[in-house]
Amino acid sequence: MASWKEIDTHAKEWTKTAGKRLRESFKETLNISTKSNRNDLVTNMDKETEEFFITKIKENYPDHRILGEEGMGEGVTDLNGIVWIIDPIDGTMNFIHQQRNFAISIGIYENGVGKIGLIYDVVHDELYHAVKGQGAYMNDVKLQELEPVALSDMILSLNATWVTENKRIDPAILSKLVKDIRGTRSYGSAAIELAYTAAGRVDGYISLRLAPWDVAGGAVLVEEVGGLVTDLRGKPLDLVNGGSVFACRPVLHEEVLKKYLADY
Amino acid sequence: MASWKEIDTHAKEWTKTAGKRLRESFKETLNISTKSNRNDLVTNMDKETEEFFITKIKENYPDHRILGEEGMGEGVTDLNGIVWIIDPIDGTMNFIHQQRNFAISIGIYENGVGKIGLIYDVVHDELYHAVKGQGAYMNDVKLQELEPVALSDMILSLNATWVTENKRIDPAILSKLVKDIRGTRSYGSAAIELAYTAAGRVDGYISLRLAPWDVAGGAVLVEEVGGLVTDLRGKPLDLVNGGSVFACRPVLHEEVLKKYLADY
Repeated sequence: MASWKEIDTHAKEWTKTAGKRLRESFKETLNISTKSNRNDLVTNMDKETEEFFITKIKENYPDHRILGEEGMGEGVTDLNGIVWIIDPIDGTMNFIHQQRNFAISIGIYENGVGKIGLIYDVVHDELYHAVKGQGAYMNDVKLQELEPVALSDMILSLNATWVTENKRIDPAILSKLVKDIRGTRSYGSAAIELAYTAAGRVDGYISLRLAPWDVAGGAVLVEEVGGLVTDLRGKPLDLVNGGSVFACRPVLHEEVLKKYLADY
Repeated sequence: MASWKEIDTHAKEWTKTAGKRLRESFKETLNISTKSNRNDLVTNMDKETEEFFITKIKENYPDHRILGEEGMGEGVTDLNGIVWIIDPIDGTMNFIHQQRNFAISIGIYENGVGKIGLIYDVVHDELYHAVKGQGAYMNDVKLQELEPVALSDMILSLNATWVTENKRIDPAILSKLVKDIRGTRSYGSAAIELAYTAAGRVDGYISLRLAPWDVAGGAVLVEEVGGLVTDLRGKPLDLVNGGSVFACRPVLHEEVLKKYLADY
């Protein structure tokens, strides 16, 4: 059986290669948003990238399974054995319109336990990376253990959607939180926002609707530096069906759950 | 009298130099947010950078005036003559906590008319730059003329603050808009968000509380590519006192003003 060290080396290598291809796919123009493909949000690059990972994984680890956004892996309905949970381009809208603020996200789980997390901010060539129990890194820089901060100092990654009328949460619940903290951000990629949470650049991230591949890699990263990742009721993430997510620094996570999310 | 070409060359050169200093100020650690200086938001780098510009401008253009965030220029209460409107670090919170997503922003105005706009995304070494009537660029890449997009496709840069209870606008007004568009983002730096608007990476930017130095550079950039920049009532920006700002693609700007901001 393959060692985790070998799997890790492969995962990093393949991610870097896939990222290089994505960078090379960009034309010399900045502003593709005004082109006729403005609404054509299905990019071939998503599929090509997922295919690339599937081929590599199947070649090297025929017994591993794959849960990916493009659905080209076999149907995965449980996390038994080793499962690669892959988002080839997290933040597709940003990929298309900004050519930045998107990432490749990979979480490798064994019987439901996150072993490896990788988030690659492709354009800025920043690979966030963690192996469970061995620390988290951005490229070669070790990420520090997350310490608590005061609620009034909190910078929260939160899209404005969740404090306006929507189908998933009463906007009043998170509005109260937004009012009490220092500020919010929204970068348009769950993977980037979880990587930022792990790096301490934001203090937490909340979203009401995420797929497994949006959070699988980031959850390993955030937990490896002492952060907590649950759904909005404080329950473990459902990495087969997806749902809500609340990733946060320690202590603050519990405080927000108790004071603001008890009504959810 | 100095030519605009010479002023432009100087402005770019000084901005690059100031950016290099900011980059060099970063220590080898990623996560300064958990240090004891978490709340010490006054950075010396803000002041040093503004001082650097003031010294350069006074040496070369003794008749130009300076309006800067740090207030080290003389008191400027009108825009007569040539005025440099400078934010040495726009996005101070991001500068401190993220070491990214901040910018140097400079607008150079002559009798109230924007002549030169510069926004330097320091960490990513991306200089957004426009001279009135001569096009806008990101480094050497020309930014394309902004075309209209449908409201339902709009990506708007908008902080969640403005759709929750606040002192400046009824949250219901912008909530309606958020509901009807494709999505929102919030990067935590007005300068970056205006540069993104100019580059077509987002379709518009709304904020209720901005100082002149937050928007002076970005307004020149956005207008140079055919975008519109006004306050939330559709009136010209007040670049002495500040206020609200709504920068947007053409046509869409008018539509949002009419359909959503008429109640403001």
